[in-house]
Amino acid sequence: MNAGARLDRARERLARAGLSGLIATPGSDLAYLIGWSPLPLERLIALVVRPDAEPVLIVPELERPGALASPAADALEIRGWRDGEDPYALTARLLPSGRVAISDGAWAAHVLGLQRERPDVAFTTVGAALPLLRAVKDPEELEILRRAARGADEAFADILGVRFAGRREIDVAADLAEALRAHGHGTVEFTIVGSGPNGASPHHEAGERRIEPGDAVVLDFGGRMAGYCSDITRTVVVGEPAPELARVHEVVRAAQQAGVEAVRPGVACEDVDRAARAVIEEAGYGEAFVHRTGHGIGLDVHEPPSIVAGDRTPLEPGMTFSVEPGIYLEGRFGVRIEDIVAVTEDGVERLNQAPRDLARVI
Amino acid sequence: MNAGARLDRARERLARAGLSGLIATPGSDLAYLIGWSPLPLERLIALVVRPDAEPVLIVPELERPGALASPAADALEIRGWRDGEDPYALTARLLPSGRVAISDGAWAAHVLGLQRERPDVAFTTVGAALPLLRAVKDPEELEILRRAARGADEAFADILGVRFAGRREIDVAADLAEALRAHGHGTVEFTIVGSGPNGASPHHEAGERRIEPGDAVVLDFGGRMAGYCSDITRTVVVGEPAPELARVHEVVRAAQQAGVEAVRPGVACEDVDRAARAVIEEAGYGEAFVHRTGHGIGLDVHEPPSIVAGDRTPLEPGMTFSVEPGIYLEGRFGVRIEDIVAVTEDGVERLNQAPRDLARVI
Repeated sequence: MNAGARLDRARERLARAGLSGLIATPGSDLAYLIGWSPLPLERLIALVVRPDAEPVLIVPELERPGALASPAADALEIRGWRDGEDPYALTARLLPSGRVAISDGAWAAHVLGLQRERPDVAFTTVGAALPLLRAVKDPEELEILRRAARGADEAFADILGVRFAGRREIDVAADLAEALRAHGHGTVEFTIVGSGPNGASPHHEAGERRIEPGDAVVLDFGGRMAGYCSDITRTVVVGEPAPELARVHEVVRAAQQAGVEAVRPGVACEDVDRAARAVIEEAGYGEAFVHRTGHGIGLDVHEPPSIVAGDRTPLEPGMTFSVEPGIYLEGRFGVRIEDIVAVTEDGVERLNQAPRDLARVI
Repeated sequence: MNAGARLDRARERLARAGLSGLIATPGSDLAYLIGWSPLPLERLIALVVRPDAEPVLIVPELERPGALASPAADALEIRGWRDGEDPYALTARLLPSGRVAISDGAWAAHVLGLQRERPDVAFTTVGAALPLLRAVKDPEELEILRRAARGADEAFADILGVRFAGRREIDVAADLAEALRAHGHGTVEFTIVGSGPNGASPHHEAGERRIEPGDAVVLDFGGRMAGYCSDITRTVVVGEPAPELARVHEVVRAAQQAGVEAVRPGVACEDVDRAARAVIEEAGYGEAFVHRTGHGIGLDVHEPPSIVAGDRTPLEPGMTFSVEPGIYLEGRFGVRIEDIVAVTEDGVERLNQAPRDLARVI
């Protein structure tokens, strides 16, 4: 990563977006811009980027050595503050008036502290004002995302060999976590195992329920590799599927295929959602598809753009996001299929290659 | 935990603090009030507590099943929202005008979204307006914190038996993590190993440096047990200490003792800081004690009160915090000693019992 180059690009984008400044706090924006990932804590750490001035990193004195070790330290001025000093006054003095974007996940305490010092500044979020700051991945980022997706595919291949029937969801979730680690993931972020009726709740995690023969089981899992996220979903069946499960799975598979096929530069995010949703609606399950079709992915599991009605962002080469339609039949079962895709110069690349047919497990 | 009782107490405290409402977002405030710990993500989850109305939990429809499973679900009204709806408008309609406190770690995106809908509401943070919401622990919380501290003590006892000389800091950090897990910690939050000159940076984590004979090594580590945090620091020496190291360690030990002895109900937080700092200043090392004396601890590693000049909060029985003075000699070494203490009816209880003398390791 050339952190200095990302800072330069951020400065250009600020100006074009009509922003007078950007404040990145610990999290993905800061990691992206200067390659440093301190913990987000109550002591303010803030990178202030302005169109016409050198970037300044405000850090507690305690954290100065960590800041100095960041890859972009040479492209920054570092200003330390000590316990007892007011970091908001220090930071506020650097802000031009006008509109300033702050990281979406910045702490409320920090936003309110800065607003108190600078009532003349109109604060907004990076997500609202510069949503695409990290959306277009460079070749190096794409290669890491490809590797992470491949690791998730391999973890799914492993899981097809474990026993499901009679074991608890949390046992299969533990197997998934182990498989992610075995296939190169540094951390495991989520391992959703939704069996039978639990699969009808899209965000059910994994519980004590024992998986039964005939169950549909939604497996949605991912982790981080070199800072970047994987996220894949497949739905499997224990033994033979009931006819309705097979039918619903085929609808979701076709919807996911339609969503992916809609992806190319210039298409609006909402059109990808519409393409996937239309297949489910035509099959009569429109009410049972209760979430958006996808989300951007990179240093965050969820980041812009959002593949949802109302998001007219035109797709650009290098953008990466999930395509993950689902059908949820309350009290009975759920089906979801998810791949991460990248927009290419003239179409789409699926980063996940695991088979999407209804796999049978034992 | 009786979650309903904590909600009732929060409503009383709101009124006394002149607040018209409190908004708890995913994190420790929400875990404390209703026993639910969803991940903080971009989709708004917000518990709205008002003095004269039933608490309302705003959740994405996806998360409703998780919310319904929370221990306090019966004491709440749960309102779901779907992708495409505006959760800020939904939440804002519940807010009375006046002053509303929001969790310190609430996302900037959420604060700014609520401010946009309700410019008439003066938002502040829980930390600023209700700093003591979680500060006084009930007997059940104290017992968990005691167990967590005991686990950290036992991990320290284990680490005295491992080899330091010739190994890297990250190797000893891995041993610390394993020891924390072996002694009942569900997660490991930090394992600082600052050897030789690295110990002079209070927030140095652990690096590639190989530990040498004669090094002072600062070990500052902790994790979570049943949601509550441990946090202990001891400084050890590899072999025989140089005379200045022995002298500095004795100053820090005496300062820590003085800090702990100053703790009793009614004493101001800053007086505990002053008691510890005075010992270090008298020994001529005042400039080398670059941080506050301590921080509250509970569901968060760092929470109010702050044991620092300017914090006049009177101590109350049940409060728990660290007492952790240090001396940092740049380019040479650092020494820090930290225990968690609880304020009792008439004095203080050290939750950590590990010996505080300068332990020799090999």
